[in-house]
Amino acid sequence: MERLQALVSEDMAAVEQLLAARAASPVAMIPDLSGYIVSAGGKRLRPLVTLASAHAAGGVGPGTHALAAAVEFIHTATLLHDDVVDESKLRRGKAAAKSVWGNSASILVGDFLFARAFTLMVETGSLEILDILSHASTVIAEGEVRQLAAQGRLDLPTEEYLAIVEAKTAALFEAAARAGALSSGSATAADALAAYGKNLGLAFQIVDDVLDYGGTTQVIGKSVGDDFREGKVTLPVVIARRRGSPEDKAFWDRALDPARQDESDLARAIRLIRATGAAEATIAEAQAYAGLARQALGALPPSPHRQALCDLADYCVSRLN
Amino acid sequence: MERLQALVSEDMAAVEQLLAARAASPVAMIPDLSGYIVSAGGKRLRPLVTLASAHAAGGVGPGTHALAAAVEFIHTATLLHDDVVDESKLRRGKAAAKSVWGNSASILVGDFLFARAFTLMVETGSLEILDILSHASTVIAEGEVRQLAAQGRLDLPTEEYLAIVEAKTAALFEAAARAGALSSGSATAADALAAYGKNLGLAFQIVDDVLDYGGTTQVIGKSVGDDFREGKVTLPVVIARRRGSPEDKAFWDRALDPARQDESDLARAIRLIRATGAAEATIAEAQAYAGLARQALGALPPSPHRQALCDLADYCVSRLN
Repeated sequence: MERLQALVSEDMAAVEQLLAARAASPVAMIPDLSGYIVSAGGKRLRPLVTLASAHAAGGVGPGTHALAAAVEFIHTATLLHDDVVDESKLRRGKAAAKSVWGNSASILVGDFLFARAFTLMVETGSLEILDILSHASTVIAEGEVRQLAAQGRLDLPTEEYLAIVEAKTAALFEAAARAGALSSGSATAADALAAYGKNLGLAFQIVDDVLDYGGTTQVIGKSVGDDFREGKVTLPVVIARRRGSPEDKAFWDRALDPARQDESDLARAIRLIRATGAAEATIAEAQAYAGLARQALGALPPSPHRQALCDLADYCVSRLN
Repeated sequence: MERLQALVSEDMAAVEQLLAARAASPVAMIPDLSGYIVSAGGKRLRPLVTLASAHAAGGVGPGTHALAAAVEFIHTATLLHDDVVDESKLRRGKAAAKSVWGNSASILVGDFLFARAFTLMVETGSLEILDILSHASTVIAEGEVRQLAAQGRLDLPTEEYLAIVEAKTAALFEAAARAGALSSGSATAADALAAYGKNLGLAFQIVDDVLDYGGTTQVIGKSVGDDFREGKVTLPVVIARRRGSPEDKAFWDRALDPARQDESDLARAIRLIRATGAAEATIAEAQAYAGLARQALGALPPSPHRQALCDLADYCVSRLN
């Protein structure tokens, strides 16, 4: 991760400048709220993938920085809307923007950032890039609606879970990598990098979902239990419930309904996810996708950026330990 | 209005087909919800302006229909988000989508339609059109946030009210007219039609705001009082309060706080808006903008479409009687 950051640090500085400049508005609430979330210590994973993909495909082009900033704005807009949809009070251990400014402001500033993302993409001058990202934005929204419709479906098939993750998370990584590659001016590496991005996104989200139950360790950090409290149906839950006793099944069916949870439920959920091997099984799923991501990079000529992307796939799954 | 509809009826049929096709999704909730609002009996004012502007500028081009559909999707996405922000239970006398499907679905399907709008615009093949509409989308979101920040400010200056209306409503009419003109392949009429669109949008929204208090007539229809119940600070209120006695001012300050309203307040509000001449003053403001809209059309060569746009400006203010 640090190696990747070092490799693109100059590009990233330009992207950070764009992010700050384009979150500006004479309407004070907009820079206040977007500044709060844009600078909330996110890892800038999507711009990093965009920039490294451009480098690995031949070098950054005139539109790469604007593209990387646009990708981060799309992600930020999604986070703002997610917080309202999920009724989550915290984001990355900090009060969610909507807890400070309210739901309405979060919705509208999300819309603002989404619109700004498109203005940035127009500046890349590439209709192909606009097509890729507008399509990805559609797929993300579809994925979010699909996740909403899956609420309370504790017998969610693994395939449906994966389809949701692919849409709501992996589609943006895929688009960022593909468009990043194209922004270099060369189309040859675009398919390989798109496959990398998609599989990286899958691995990343699946790991996130198991980390929400503390992974396989005993440590219960600040950010554990968000999905549980929101009643989100994720892979560790689906597997633990599938493998559980009738009594365990009844527990999951009650406890994943936010209205019927009590305080001791999270500890029991974590215990069951470990005892049934659901944590390991989920991690194995993530590792498989990280492997596919690394494998996709094989089609590219060796380069420091290809290596850094490869390491990033490892990093995503190593966050578990 | 009917004349305009007749003039572009073939184009409009193509646009309706696009609207139906592009609201499609394998995720059932998306076509259900968007079908509900897209076919909720809207007047399709923005696509009509887009199509007529293209005709008045020289004729529809290959991208005009996609553009007109994109403009309607942007408008629809805004409506879906507005309903959540305004906490309104009704839209055009029908249950708001969010009352049927919930806030989360309204937010996410709004995002979906917004993304689809951009995909449609990519199909026009014009970066200039994408630039105009992405910029307008930014301005709309800014206007909505500005309106949110104005809540409870009963001493809102008329200039600030007009700036909000220009951003949240007129910007899309302006962009639709300008981009519609450009989609004809000729740039000569774009500025005049943009000025027309902006002033039409201003007139239209100001009329809407006075109609929410029943205009100058005694009829209290189904859709009267929405803004009042949401505590929205609009021009008729600002003028009536400014012209009112200290007792009236105290009434407005209490009654425009949704939490402190009671049932008889709307009738008193309507009475005060008429008694102080605030309704007439607001209508005069709208008529001035309708006049500017008509005037802007003077720069165009005479044509049936120019005439229909001129009539539309009259229609907007004649809705009052």
